[in-house]
Amino acid sequence: MLQGKILVAQGGGPTAVINQSMAGCVIEARKFAGVERVYGASHGVRGIVDEEFLDLTQETTHNLELVAGTPCSALGSTRDKPDLAYCREIFKVLQAHEISTFFYIGGNDSCDTLRIVSEEAAAADYALRCIHIPKTIDNDLLINDHTPGYPSAARFVACAFAGVNLDNAALPGVYVGVVMGRHAGYLTAASTLGRKYDDDGPHLIYLPERPFGIDAFLDDVKAVHDRLGRCVVAVSEGVHDASGKPISATMAGGVETDAHGNVQLSGTSSLADLLTGLIRDNLQIKRVRGDTLGYLQRSFLGCVSDVDQREAREVGEKAVQFAHWGNSDGSVTIHRTGFYSVEYRLSPLEAVARKTRPMEDAFIAPSGNDVTRDFLLYLRPLLGSGMPDAFRLRSNRVEKILGK
Amino acid sequence: MLQGKILVAQGGGPTAVINQSMAGCVIEARKFAGVERVYGASHGVRGIVDEEFLDLTQETTHNLELVAGTPCSALGSTRDKPDLAYCREIFKVLQAHEISTFFYIGGNDSCDTLRIVSEEAAAADYALRCIHIPKTIDNDLLINDHTPGYPSAARFVACAFAGVNLDNAALPGVYVGVVMGRHAGYLTAASTLGRKYDDDGPHLIYLPERPFGIDAFLDDVKAVHDRLGRCVVAVSEGVHDASGKPISATMAGGVETDAHGNVQLSGTSSLADLLTGLIRDNLQIKRVRGDTLGYLQRSFLGCVSDVDQREAREVGEKAVQFAHWGNSDGSVTIHRTGFYSVEYRLSPLEAVARKTRPMEDAFIAPSGNDVTRDFLLYLRPLLGSGMPDAFRLRSNRVEKILGK
Repeated sequence: MLQGKILVAQGGGPTAVINQSMAGCVIEARKFAGVERVYGASHGVRGIVDEEFLDLTQETTHNLELVAGTPCSALGSTRDKPDLAYCREIFKVLQAHEISTFFYIGGNDSCDTLRIVSEEAAAADYALRCIHIPKTIDNDLLINDHTPGYPSAARFVACAFAGVNLDNAALPGVYVGVVMGRHAGYLTAASTLGRKYDDDGPHLIYLPERPFGIDAFLDDVKAVHDRLGRCVVAVSEGVHDASGKPISATMAGGVETDAHGNVQLSGTSSLADLLTGLIRDNLQIKRVRGDTLGYLQRSFLGCVSDVDQREAREVGEKAVQFAHWGNSDGSVTIHRTGFYSVEYRLSPLEAVARKTRPMEDAFIAPSGNDVTRDFLLYLRPLLGSGMPDAFRLRSNRVEKILGK
Repeated sequence: MLQGKILVAQGGGPTAVINQSMAGCVIEARKFAGVERVYGASHGVRGIVDEEFLDLTQETTHNLELVAGTPCSALGSTRDKPDLAYCREIFKVLQAHEISTFFYIGGNDSCDTLRIVSEEAAAADYALRCIHIPKTIDNDLLINDHTPGYPSAARFVACAFAGVNLDNAALPGVYVGVVMGRHAGYLTAASTLGRKYDDDGPHLIYLPERPFGIDAFLDDVKAVHDRLGRCVVAVSEGVHDASGKPISATMAGGVETDAHGNVQLSGTSSLADLLTGLIRDNLQIKRVRGDTLGYLQRSFLGCVSDVDQREAREVGEKAVQFAHWGNSDGSVTIHRTGFYSVEYRLSPLEAVARKTRPMEDAFIAPSGNDVTRDFLLYLRPLLGSGMPDAFRLRSNRVEKILGK
């Protein structure tokens, strides 16, 4: 039963809807009579250790609703990954503030943090309910059909490539767009959702789930360019060669790693420059352009899926309900039940923590450089309503007179 | 008087609303009884020389309306800049097809193309009415208060930086975003329109209108980071040192130039990498990220200003009306008459051709790294309705108990 003091925090990379989950959790928790206070930790577990809490019981519902519609973690986030000593610091603070329930919104790393905190609480015989609320644009959490944050980022990527495809058709050449996604190609694959006509790009997509070969890449680009006179390519930042070595690492001088040991891939554009340079040097194509989509994918103000908003709100609400009516820690997981509907369950923390899920084989075309129709059907309902559409002039050609 | 065969073409870089101008021109031209055919040239002047015309008289109004709402040049574009020989090729084709009026939608380079064609037509004693329809995301055409395409690109940049600012507040550090704009800082300056709270970014903006000094840049970033613990920077791709040498050129190995002799600045990310590298190497700041906003600025599907759509449509319509009721060649120009209203005039081609307009001094703060309130007032009405807004949690701090 939910009672006493509740704590909510946000971890990992921000998304367009992570505040929906926070608001869903806070507004739902404030309904229960036994709940004394709802606190929010500033910058995730870092804020707990530093005792940096906001009293969200004193926030208006109206403002919570407005913040819910704002992208990026309103409470602040962190990349800290607590070890045992860090967790003991967390306990001291949770005990001192008599926190009974801890909701942590994040990805597999944040879930792992919660798992450790939960285990430490059990070992210390401290009654703490720990509920993980899923969030990641990478869409790589186990058990979940998909994760909040991904649909909105996917919508951004689909709209970006739909636009870039039109740009590339107007001024033909080769365009390479690098998309976020360290281990899972879900976000890169979303670039295909803006295709409408047979010759629309992206014409080639490269995912971390398949080894990336430079020769095959150049052959693919040449074949498309020979056929259409242009080529749009979507590449995951996480593509690697057959040995698992990131392609971007072959260029990057110094490789930066975060606290989780992950190589820093975004916020550097070496991969796009490497690939466009390769094309320029090896194929006789004049106009070659590259972009790294970067942080806009997860933060752009005004590009959001209403389905994603709704689900992110609901996993926050459901977390509170599971805490109140259930009696175990866990991670709220999303399960598809129709085309399109979902239900929410509480799964064990250890089943979601740490591990990542690659894109399913059934979603990747045998060629390895495209998606299947199954993937289009999987993603389309997640993008939400009001997806913009692109139209073309019909080809009523005028007969040539000079006809040179 | 408008009669016979009309030709419309699109040149230069695509925008979100360039098809509004095409549709406005075509739909208006089809109303006049004397108009026999309305042709569209594929890929600008290149399509004229190659006799690649679509008969837009046979396109449905309904589809023209749908295409109008689609970003990027539906007819295709070109970077060709005709010389005398090229213009003679154009004449041959225009004469053969008995074209009476030529509408060319584009920027200062496209206007210059039209000026040459117009002069060649006069020299050849061929009756050709030439009307330039303005378009450029750079907002750098002379005479015009602003140019179609800019407001939508500005809206994209404002939304991008509003989101990136939230991301940077959630996970503090330094973020550098590089924005299009070779000679004019208008688009980079648009990054400030997403600021709402006093400490919102971008905290620093760097424009081509002011010399860029690396030491001053590092001092600026350090000062903001010391004060706020974070810093968001918007930089124009065209920033250069006091001698006029582009900062990006100090990094780029091979510099690519287009047919107009312009150095290729977009589609390469050296500037963002250079600046983030400088910060990492010289300041003791751990988290430094950079993005080059790239082609999304002008092509992203679903980010458009309705004011921009309306005006782009109207300059197309007005071009036809000027051709019908006037008796001179010229460029349609936009003049502000209220807060907010505009009127359209026909200005001489040579007054708009070739030259570019830098950002006004009154729009740049004395510090050189910010805009003035005049600029905010100038740009705000252009962004259109429904601008997304960002909200924050109020700071009801919980008292520390352990208080380490």
